[in-house]
Amino acid sequence: MADAGFTVIRVGESVWSTWEPSDGCFSLDWLQPVLDGASARNISVILGTPTYAVPPWLVRIYPEIAGERGTGSRIPWGARQEVDFTHPAFRFHAERVIRAVVGRYATHPAVIGFQVDNEPGLELLHNEGVFQRFADHLRISYGSVERLNEEWGLVYWSHRLSTWADLWRPDGNAQPQYELAWRRFQARQTDEFIAWQAAIVREYASASQFITTCIAYDRPAVDDRTVTAALDVTSGNAYYVMQDGLALPDTRTPTQTWTTDGVWALYLTADRMYSSRQEPFLVTETNAGSIGMSWDNRPAYDGQWRQAAWALVSRGARMIEYWHWHTLPFGTETYWGGVLPHSGQPGRTYRELSRLGAELELLDSFVPDADVAVVIDVPTQWIMQKFPALSHPDGTPDERAYQGLVEPFYRGAFDAGLQARLLHAPQLGFDVADAVRRFPVLIAAGLYLASDETLDWLRDYAEAGGHLILGPRTGYADLEARARPDRMPARLASAAGAWYDEFSNLRTPIEVTTDPEHLPVADGATATRWIDGLNADGATVLATYQHPHFGRWPAVTTNAAGRGRITCVGTVPDTRLASALLRWAASGRVTVWSSLPATVTCTSGTTPDGRRLRFVHNWSFDETNFPAPVDCRDVLTGKSVPAGDEIELSRWDVRVLLEDPGTGS
Amino acid sequence: MADAGFTVIRVGESVWSTWEPSDGCFSLDWLQPVLDGASARNISVILGTPTYAVPPWLVRIYPEIAGERGTGSRIPWGARQEVDFTHPAFRFHAERVIRAVVGRYATHPAVIGFQVDNEPGLELLHNEGVFQRFADHLRISYGSVERLNEEWGLVYWSHRLSTWADLWRPDGNAQPQYELAWRRFQARQTDEFIAWQAAIVREYASASQFITTCIAYDRPAVDDRTVTAALDVTSGNAYYVMQDGLALPDTRTPTQTWTTDGVWALYLTADRMYSSRQEPFLVTETNAGSIGMSWDNRPAYDGQWRQAAWALVSRGARMIEYWHWHTLPFGTETYWGGVLPHSGQPGRTYRELSRLGAELELLDSFVPDADVAVVIDVPTQWIMQKFPALSHPDGTPDERAYQGLVEPFYRGAFDAGLQARLLHAPQLGFDVADAVRRFPVLIAAGLYLASDETLDWLRDYAEAGGHLILGPRTGYADLEARARPDRMPARLASAAGAWYDEFSNLRTPIEVTTDPEHLPVADGATATRWIDGLNADGATVLATYQHPHFGRWPAVTTNAAGRGRITCVGTVPDTRLASALLRWAASGRVTVWSSLPATVTCTSGTTPDGRRLRFVHNWSFDETNFPAPVDCRDVLTGKSVPAGDEIELSRWDVRVLLEDPGTGS
Amino acid sequence: MADAGFTVIRVGESVWSTWEPSDGCFSLDWLQPVLDGASARNISVILGTPTYAVPPWLVRIYPEIAGERGTGSRIPWGARQEVDFTHPAFRFHAERVIRAVVGRYATHPAVIGFQVDNEPGLELLHNEGVFQRFADHLRISYGSVERLNEEWGLVYWSHRLSTWADLWRPDGNAQPQYELAWRRFQARQTDEFIAWQAAIVREYASASQFITTCIAYDRPAVDDRTVTAALDVTSGNAYYVMQDGLALPDTRTPTQTWTTDGVWALYLTADRMYSSRQEPFLVTETNAGSIGMSWDNRPAYDGQWRQAAWALVSRGARMIEYWHWHTLPFGTETYWGGVLPHSGQPGRTYRELSRLGAELELLDSFVPDADVAVVIDVPTQWIMQKFPALSHPDGTPDERAYQGLVEPFYRGAFDAGLQARLLHAPQLGFDVADAVRRFPVLIAAGLYLASDETLDWLRDYAEAGGHLILGPRTGYADLEARARPDRMPARLASAAGAWYDEFSNLRTPIEVTTDPEHLPVADGATATRWIDGLNADGATVLATYQHPHFGRWPAVTTNAAGRGRITCVGTVPDTRLASALLRWAASGRVTVWSSLPATVTCTSGTTPDGRRLRFVHNWSFDETNFPAPVDCRDVLTGKSVPAGDEIELSRWDVRVLLEDPGTGS
Repeated sequence: MADAGFTVIRVGESVWSTWEPSDGCFSLDWLQPVLDGASARNISVILGTPTYAVPPWLVRIYPEIAGERGTGSRIPWGARQEVDFTHPAFRFHAERVIRAVVGRYATHPAVIGFQVDNEPGLELLHNEGVFQRFADHLRISYGSVERLNEEWGLVYWSHRLSTWADLWRPDGNAQPQYELAWRRFQARQTDEFIAWQAAIVREYASASQFITTCIAYDRPAVDDRTVTAALDVTSGNAYYVMQDGLALPDTRTPTQTWTTDGVWALYLTADRMYSSRQEPFLVTETNAGSIGMSWDNRPAYDGQWRQAAWALVSRGARMIEYWHWHTLPFGTETYWGGVLPHSGQPGRTYRELSRLGAELELLDSFVPDADVAVVIDVPTQWIMQKFPALSHPDGTPDERAYQGLVEPFYRGAFDAGLQARLLHAPQLGFDVADAVRRFPVLIAAGLYLASDETLDWLRDYAEAGGHLILGPRTGYADLEARARPDRMPARLASAAGAWYDEFSNLRTPIEVTTDPEHLPVADGATATRWIDGLNADGATVLATYQHPHFGRWPAVTTNAAGRGRITCVGTVPDTRLASALLRWAASGRVTVWSSLPATVTCTSGTTPDGRRLRFVHNWSFDETNFPAPVDCRDVLTGKSVPAGDEIELSRWDVRVLLEDPGTGS
Repeated sequence: MADAGFTVIRVGESVWSTWEPSDGCFSLDWLQPVLDGASARNISVILGTPTYAVPPWLVRIYPEIAGERGTGSRIPWGARQEVDFTHPAFRFHAERVIRAVVGRYATHPAVIGFQVDNEPGLELLHNEGVFQRFADHLRISYGSVERLNEEWGLVYWSHRLSTWADLWRPDGNAQPQYELAWRRFQARQTDEFIAWQAAIVREYASASQFITTCIAYDRPAVDDRTVTAALDVTSGNAYYVMQDGLALPDTRTPTQTWTTDGVWALYLTADRMYSSRQEPFLVTETNAGSIGMSWDNRPAYDGQWRQAAWALVSRGARMIEYWHWHTLPFGTETYWGGVLPHSGQPGRTYRELSRLGAELELLDSFVPDADVAVVIDVPTQWIMQKFPALSHPDGTPDERAYQGLVEPFYRGAFDAGLQARLLHAPQLGFDVADAVRRFPVLIAAGLYLASDETLDWLRDYAEAGGHLILGPRTGYADLEARARPDRMPARLASAAGAWYDEFSNLRTPIEVTTDPEHLPVADGATATRWIDGLNADGATVLATYQHPHFGRWPAVTTNAAGRGRITCVGTVPDTRLASALLRWAASGRVTVWSSLPATVTCTSGTTPDGRRLRFVHNWSFDETNFPAPVDCRDVLTGKSVPAGDEIELSRWDVRVLLEDPGTGS
Repeated sequence: MADAGFTVIRVGESVWSTWEPSDGCFSLDWLQPVLDGASARNISVILGTPTYAVPPWLVRIYPEIAGERGTGSRIPWGARQEVDFTHPAFRFHAERVIRAVVGRYATHPAVIGFQVDNEPGLELLHNEGVFQRFADHLRISYGSVERLNEEWGLVYWSHRLSTWADLWRPDGNAQPQYELAWRRFQARQTDEFIAWQAAIVREYASASQFITTCIAYDRPAVDDRTVTAALDVTSGNAYYVMQDGLALPDTRTPTQTWTTDGVWALYLTADRMYSSRQEPFLVTETNAGSIGMSWDNRPAYDGQWRQAAWALVSRGARMIEYWHWHTLPFGTETYWGGVLPHSGQPGRTYRELSRLGAELELLDSFVPDADVAVVIDVPTQWIMQKFPALSHPDGTPDERAYQGLVEPFYRGAFDAGLQARLLHAPQLGFDVADAVRRFPVLIAAGLYLASDETLDWLRDYAEAGGHLILGPRTGYADLEARARPDRMPARLASAAGAWYDEFSNLRTPIEVTTDPEHLPVADGATATRWIDGLNADGATVLATYQHPHFGRWPAVTTNAAGRGRITCVGTVPDTRLASALLRWAASGRVTVWSSLPATVTCTSGTTPDGRRLRFVHNWSFDETNFPAPVDCRDVLTGKSVPAGDEIELSRWDVRVLLEDPGTGS
């Protein structure tokens, strides 16, 4: 490890049954030589609490702690994260082992921080205690069943409660209002659990040690914004498809899963991690040898590990940890390829990561730049999993409908060479002048659940000089998932100079014609999946549908609003339309770095002394080159690159360039 | 509503928890102003009983009324129609609320009729009581286990019962005979329940008030023929795919679900409603704004609502009710688009329906015509859901196999410009001379379960002068779903001059060559999905397969039988073959209205004074026209249309024409 | 039957409820006239024990004998093979009825043998008793939990047991080591059950009567090698797709299910049956009229029944029984087409089989030949069902991954005109000189689980003069499914002159370029599904990938090893590459019968006097012919066929030729 430049390891979090082989019998000494050995090699350690994987003796003694995926349906033990972590019998034992382990090792000089639990929020727990506390939560929140009946609209289908005991179980629920409350409550359980652990660990931690947990962002019961509130730093796990999944140009639109697929999606992962606390973050896990199950081994092409690491770093990662060191010869993760292969002999992965380790040491601190802001909202994602606005092409519901509405805009920005800052909807509300200054363009697409305050803030942002881009479904419902009784987009239609009161799903794309002067698009741009029946009521029409019915409505309108502008996009734009739209909207952000070969991306950050760092990637087997637009210094080689000199990128290559002062965009 | 020409509303059926907010506490007054308001605007009211959606307090107090989808597997409460409606604890409460509501409002002058329950038969109930009564039913029907063992052929796989207590649960059943008895018994529960409610309501109803229920025809536990026996009129819910789903010409063969897809399938819906009682019917629900879940919003193109309404009316609908008035802002059906959008402001749907309301007032009464009869059978549909004769192209079972056998013939008739009357198999048996007079062509395809009497009646129909068209699987089994020990088609082979004793599924279509003189078909007609190994034994061969193996057997034979004719179709004909076949068989029905543009359909009815009404639709974005074949009057404009004048149809247009006496086909 | 040449029937195995209509009341006489009638017609009888289908009264009285697919999840009664056959309450009754039936009829002169149970191993039983005995089995095998913790690597995810009671249930298991032990234990239950029945029956059987069971080879809980150890002869059920599924040439790669699809796969079935005991076998069931469910009727083309029978016979079948005689008119298998159709009148199937019956009498005994050996392993198949190495093209796990690794090599041999002998891995270990003599080429592909001894034996085989062909995954793990800590292929890399420490799945094939001198391949050969990152370390490269990344590694290497050779294939070869590879490897086996028309196959056997029998099939609607390469006698016609005379094969035809002594390959 030391040879390869590894500077930090993570230990202790998967082995409760090693820490405590049987109930109350602890075995703590075994880690000492590991920590000592790390110290001796200048390797820092993040110490984990082992609560995510409970030992078999604990579920044997207290079978009632098994999590329930449906009421009364216990998750059989055998993997991990199977328990109801809210259950006192679990908490009692979890606290005991946390205090034993952390108490023993917190002061070891190698330990720089702590990870509590691991990828929390895997399950929506249906246990009796969880449900009863949910009912209590509703009782306290709404005060009376009459109020709940009214707010949730329970008149239809005879759902009015006569007393709190009437509250039905989540298993059979078909009401969006209930679903949303249930999902919010589930995330609050995770928040509380992580905060509870963090508080225990904080009793032992010194001021210089941080506390975090590692987040798998697609977990159903976690809200990254709220769960990180009790922590010192965000940590996320970034798994991505390697090999051709990282090639550019990329005309695919693959489904994203717990692994992302596509260069833009890798950047989205990083930007999402930044968004949790709006600050730099740690990557606690990412692809080593190859990741996934036994049937999905696709280790990187040479160069791709380095590319991915630099991509994450360029967007705010302050640490890159590889999962994991030595590929396990047994267990479920036998094919979760580590840095070392099963033979234990350093191989290609080790060699590739060694190269990277040396490079990362050369980088100074910087802040990643942003050209546009994209509003995201976790509760909207939740409600659209069960009540999605989009279908698959065959008409079946798309539980990733929320992402299907937002990601095309993010990708449009990416394809246009722009960098995005994601903002959780509850992170809005700050000074609009500041917002306009930081983000000249702000995208709010798919923001189905929105408060009056949020919608008004969006309008104020535009009127203060920002360019607000609205996509389908934004502002359609209130925070109870009730459709608003307004012409849509609610509270924004007037300022947008456009409204709609009907909409249609699309199973096949429709060609879009754009105003060539204002919104030039390469041939063949299409509207996909959804059409709002927009009526231009003062706004200028920028694009229309080529269709005998839908052609009556504009696809894109734009309208001056105060000192700014509101653009309405009535459809899910394809990659051509989305990138053209963003290129137009953010035309002020076009830089000398914007016209690069099709396989090349360039992201940037700003150093404390105000200089611009450029991270230039060539995502291809083909080498390429382009003239340096300004004088630079190559951070990794230390050499100067005068403006006009060819910047050469070999296959799957990265260059990190520091613009010389006085030049730049 | 009044402005738009609405004349009837349906109220009260979804709100038991509003009628009875807690056990035994009734709140009945709230409807009074609604009914009074309706009266004041000359709007009639259908009053519903609220039994399909039970309040949460009722399942809390009596959890045992929860329906069971499998033995012991209770349906969790949270939607509607979740209960075992046969359970006495449910019945007690249902009767009490029915008497309270109907007793309170039956005499209100606005009330013209009653709807009991709603879309009954959603679930196959596996509750203990249902199963025990099923066992009793078998015991009484068969008398002894020995008899049952014999009739069901329980020798194989050791299924012979030693006593009634040996009867196995439906959950593990693999025997067709048991399955059929179980499905029949389930439908009888629905019949009994609806008749029970109707009898209660009838105690309060006046002679002029009707009692109905609204039928969703695809429900697994309903037989529309038997359930309507206790009612005064058939009511059905007609949901259909709008937009391109209504375009002609249509070469797709989409799967039909609870929404139909295709113009022919919309007509099939209406003809099916007519068949339940062989009389005109009410449409209690049909597409307003758009129908379906949040991921499937596809509101009509302008004109399509009007087209669909006229299509339903032309086939016997006496009322068209739209579901529903104002789109709900909450609940499961938030995206079940009403006449008004979420904003509550009249929009495109309202405007389109207003146009229609005025037109429908101009229509006088008439009887829809029929050129051919198509035999249908609900028990056959049931047995083929579990033991289908057809597979999907990938070889997996097609639970819509029954429809896959019958619908191509119906569609063939439709494509040939013919109108069909559907006859449930148990509705046969009437005078064959009358049958021949009313239906010169009668199609019996996919009629797998058939009694000796039915098969003999079909033969008698042919011998009395009718043209009987037999499709695959007809008469193969008896009413116990036992394969008959005959050469097939059983009891008909001799009169048909053709028989088979083997058959084959087809995964890919096979080209068919027809006798160009008798059965001219455009190029490319194919046999699909199934081939009977027909042997012509006296019959004339009309079509053959182009295949080195199947080519030995004819695809279509025909044989004079008495004064009539029997045609055997050994395959599922594609649209070309089916329409050619029906065009040939019903050549006597070709009228001056038969040669119309490809986007135009024409259906007809006969007025009490014997004149012919023509309903002419243009299912296309392209306008079209054709010369009036006879002198007509345009019912909606009142203008004359002399023979030879162009009848112009704009996009998605309808014309209703009354032929002048003395002209016509 | 007698007219058609049937010489054996199978009776009694599906009718326990007929033998014992109620608990303890037996009815045994009914079979007497059947056996007497068989005797009178010189038809032999195999008498079955009826234990696979228990009567309803037995599960009524002892519901606890219901099998459980998951812990506590009883299989509802209603089909067959639903019970926990290890339960004493079942065993008590099973023994009683076996003794009653066999005791009554064992000495009947018609009875030549016994079938105990039927297609055992359908379910993985999760019953309490089974699990507890599994835990006992582990306790006895491993001795202590500490040992188990160590061997299974239970440290990760906190799976270490503190005591045996901690052992988790199989339902939630995610550990390969547990899964493998569980699957092995399940198969041992089946072994024990069949041996127990055989021992009972043996008490009644005479020395000349055999005991067998019929094996469905795809059952999850059966190991054909071990289950047949207690029996006198292997019996298997060979179901296959008829019609176009038997056509050659065949470029499809269909998924094999319980029915095989493709000519090569039919031969594989037979070779697998031979492998169970490495001796000839009985085919207890095979396609009569048509086989399968109601939605899958595809009876053979004329000639195909005969072809399939001769194919099975040519590979060692000593009996061909058709399932079944008369198509049942009722029950689950109503569309399991028998020799007679539902009408009971002999039809096409009967006529076709009659022709065959007469022919089979003409054949003398012989031993089927083998050119190559293919190693197979049942436990590897089990572990790859849950932890497969291959995915479907869409990335989902392929539970037939094991077959996906092995079958392409078998098919490659078949396409190259070679005959294979399958060897279960535990059948290896015999004298390597003998192995080299019998099998000049030996293929070990997909042999994921292998002991040190097996791997060393493979090396020894090569060094003794054999040509060992290694495919992906062979030797990667030990018998506990732990990845080996070696460079791969473990224990063979050195002798192979090639090693790898990484690998990749492929979702799309990659073109392969071969050394034209040593391994000529027609254009377009591809690597599919998997690539090992082979490094030639002394070996000669025979083929490479056309890919910018994978191209660094050879696709095929070969290396002299001792007196023999080891060839490493780093991928799943497509049909072109596989057949070229086998053609090259077995070039010494090319005979004068090797160059035949594309629709023709030729397999062979050796008679006791050392002469060669040739079974020549034409799998096509097109007739064909080729000159006899040597002097032969046509066994079925008795005529001589001099070398050079045209051998004519009509559509779907078979010729059986005996080479004259002194000629031949």
